[in-house]
Amino acid sequence: MGAYEELESHFGRLTRIEEAIGMLHWDAATMMPAGGAEARSEQLATLRVIAHEMLTDPKLAELIAASHENSELDAWQVANLKEMGRLWLHSTTVPAELVDKLSRKGSACEMVWRAARPDNDFKRLQPYLKAVLELTREVAVIKGEAFKCSPYDALLDQYEPGGASVRIDAIFDDLAEFLPGFLEAVLERQAARPPALALDGPFAIEAQRSLAIRLMTKLGFDFNYGRLDVSVHPFCGGVPDDVRITTAYNTSDFLRGMMGVLHETGHALYERGLPAKWRYQPVGRARGMSLHESQSLLVEMQACRSEQFVSYVAPLAGEAFGKSGAPWQADNLYRHVTRVSRGLIRVHADEVTYPAHVILRYRLEKAMVAGDLQIAELPGAWAEGMAALLGATPPDDRDGCMQDIHWMDGAFGYFPTYTLGAMTAAQLFQSAQASDPDVLDGLGRGDFSPLMSWMGEHVHAKGSLLSTDELLTEATGQPLDASFFKAHLKNRYLP
Amino acid sequence: MGAYEELESHFGRLTRIEEAIGMLHWDAATMMPAGGAEARSEQLATLRVIAHEMLTDPKLAELIAASHENSELDAWQVANLKEMGRLWLHSTTVPAELVDKLSRKGSACEMVWRAARPDNDFKRLQPYLKAVLELTREVAVIKGEAFKCSPYDALLDQYEPGGASVRIDAIFDDLAEFLPGFLEAVLERQAARPPALALDGPFAIEAQRSLAIRLMTKLGFDFNYGRLDVSVHPFCGGVPDDVRITTAYNTSDFLRGMMGVLHETGHALYERGLPAKWRYQPVGRARGMSLHESQSLLVEMQACRSEQFVSYVAPLAGEAFGKSGAPWQADNLYRHVTRVSRGLIRVHADEVTYPAHVILRYRLEKAMVAGDLQIAELPGAWAEGMAALLGATPPDDRDGCMQDIHWMDGAFGYFPTYTLGAMTAAQLFQSAQASDPDVLDGLGRGDFSPLMSWMGEHVHAKGSLLSTDELLTEATGQPLDASFFKAHLKNRYLP
Repeated sequence: MGAYEELESHFGRLTRIEEAIGMLHWDAATMMPAGGAEARSEQLATLRVIAHEMLTDPKLAELIAASHENSELDAWQVANLKEMGRLWLHSTTVPAELVDKLSRKGSACEMVWRAARPDNDFKRLQPYLKAVLELTREVAVIKGEAFKCSPYDALLDQYEPGGASVRIDAIFDDLAEFLPGFLEAVLERQAARPPALALDGPFAIEAQRSLAIRLMTKLGFDFNYGRLDVSVHPFCGGVPDDVRITTAYNTSDFLRGMMGVLHETGHALYERGLPAKWRYQPVGRARGMSLHESQSLLVEMQACRSEQFVSYVAPLAGEAFGKSGAPWQADNLYRHVTRVSRGLIRVHADEVTYPAHVILRYRLEKAMVAGDLQIAELPGAWAEGMAALLGATPPDDRDGCMQDIHWMDGAFGYFPTYTLGAMTAAQLFQSAQASDPDVLDGLGRGDFSPLMSWMGEHVHAKGSLLSTDELLTEATGQPLDASFFKAHLKNRYLP
Repeated sequence: MGAYEELESHFGRLTRIEEAIGMLHWDAATMMPAGGAEARSEQLATLRVIAHEMLTDPKLAELIAASHENSELDAWQVANLKEMGRLWLHSTTVPAELVDKLSRKGSACEMVWRAARPDNDFKRLQPYLKAVLELTREVAVIKGEAFKCSPYDALLDQYEPGGASVRIDAIFDDLAEFLPGFLEAVLERQAARPPALALDGPFAIEAQRSLAIRLMTKLGFDFNYGRLDVSVHPFCGGVPDDVRITTAYNTSDFLRGMMGVLHETGHALYERGLPAKWRYQPVGRARGMSLHESQSLLVEMQACRSEQFVSYVAPLAGEAFGKSGAPWQADNLYRHVTRVSRGLIRVHADEVTYPAHVILRYRLEKAMVAGDLQIAELPGAWAEGMAALLGATPPDDRDGCMQDIHWMDGAFGYFPTYTLGAMTAAQLFQSAQASDPDVLDGLGRGDFSPLMSWMGEHVHAKGSLLSTDELLTEATGQPLDASFFKAHLKNRYLP
């Protein structure tokens, strides 16, 4: 067996372990009784240690170097080798003690945050978050040297391989300049029009679930290869051939659950469409978080909040809940799913204001990792940024800089992928439409196949063969550009 | 770290991997969509290889030998070391190629069996089963030499540690002599009495499930540490702190589902009651299959088919299904749960005829492993044995020697544990009653705590500290003796 083949075998085993971890995670969030938590964390910790041992196996350095000498590898194998090297570098450069320390400080910080947030007690959180940031900065510096990039970009690479803040800065600055004025105009237009009529519930969970399954099936989700369940925080888990999405039903608001299911189905279809030939290899995995988010937002935002889809789904929703009349007409439903507001909470934000939340966090975390912003200064910087970007100021830290879990766990570098995903979705949707006019018309009949087959070919089937930029350029003719997203927002919100 | 401590750490990790395997198995049987099967078998195969590698790690021989020199180990540690040695010996003595060959031939045989059984085609099965037997005999000879026992006893030890066929022979011969005449008398008495009145359904699955949960709770099953789900073949899976039982509901027969749940709950309570201090060590596991089966049969047969429990459950069942009248009176329900018949199928057998099915299989498999019975002779020997033990002859092989999966997979040595379990249950129940008269009376009030607390102390909490014989002697004053089981049968069926 050659060096490259040995790597494939090694990473094949590693991927299977990671898949087992994924399934056990899904179970913990959906099925596990509370008393099983300790045993589960023991199982998961053991499997994670084994995976980590495999990824830091001393023989890998040599095998990777030897494989680079192999001139007979095809493009997929070369890309696979590159991914292996990237994963290996992320695992080996940081001393185990530092990783362990960050993990423990992150858990401690998260625990304090869960108690301190409801109490609006930033002071209590501060030392814990400071410790997490300090350790994260240490990691970032070490990884930055290994990856030959800035510390922040090294963190970003964990979620968005090849991502570069210099490019994100330009794209986000463009958007940040556009958004405040645009938002103002949208809110003015909205205020001048009649408000949406209330959709009165309650909405039986069984009916919501039936409607969700009906729509998932329309989207091409095959229940022979996946499930829909319930969890506190909706997510897409499982493995490509057994992809499991979850939702949380609210009996007084069916739209949130429905849109959540559509969002997760976008993630699920990406996983299902990954190249089967490379199922257990790094190159067979999804490209990165921004593309993953682009697939969920493509379905939820681009497709399923379009007038076409809403006109299709309105009668189905009325039928599902036994409702009719003006509130259940497509135009009223459309008003609901395109409603914009200056909310303070990211996870409740609409697609116009969401980028403002993300750009704020991106700028703040970049400054924190660079050492230009101290934890103590965070609440002030947050309030300032919110005012500038969104025109609103949080009344407290609970609904301000303490609202998200990401930083508590040391996940600096993740936030930008949300808005990169939204922008990527706009650009991909535009190209899919241009290549086939039935992409948009199909949605009016509940026919997603033109859209999803284009996406399957240009995104899903590529796995990690190309960089995100290359993939986007091949699919749309150019790398990520804010103009598509801006055009989409104008089209929908200021027609 | 001393040698023994290193072993504890090694087996601790191994156990957590095995727990992960257990959870993934449960998921495959209850939640997994069909399309996920291939990915799941990849995940399981990988984890099994890792577990096997750990169990055959060359360093273990040395660590085990060194630990035997350690005079400071307490009784639990000594027992733990003994179990480690036993597990290690089972894994290392047989060459990996032979294990692999048997596993592949077993899968092939099982696959052929699934198709050949409905066709009643023993001829088609014969060469596959022959191959499995031959490889199993090779394994048995090698293990017999390592364990210094007969080849059959070495197979038995896989399921019933320390089990010895010379003792089983004596106990089963005793029972085999008793059963035919007893069965005759029971059937005569039954025929002379009015037949049970039919319990007319349909029985809604939700109502069956509610009743099952109510009874499980009465038994002491804590849903904070476990679940009840549905699978084709009921089983008890999961891990001690997250024990998951399954059942299969039949809308025209609620008694089978209910008794199945009670049976699995007996298994579950054993797992839950294992010593928490030794959670991830071999000595913390259940002692063996006969004791495990004793706990399920103790609940299902000894406790829940007693007149006392039936008088308690009859009104609950009537309430659950909205039924009343003569068929729903305790005496009629009791007739149902103590009905005896000369059936040909083991899994449908009652507690009087079940041992006949098992003794037959035990004798046949012992002869096959010894080389005294050829596969070609199996159908004839089966018919002969059934006639002698049960007084009935199967009309074909489908419902004769092809009815069970065990041999197809190479699981020779498993069958006797069913009836050893039934006899152990009778002996334990007798001792529990003798120590506390409220054990039986409590059942009439749905109060299982006297019974289960005795069982928890004398069986569950012992883990694998003692041998099965030692445990039974400590708990009941003597090793396994058929007289308790015979007395129980007489008491219940020929009062």
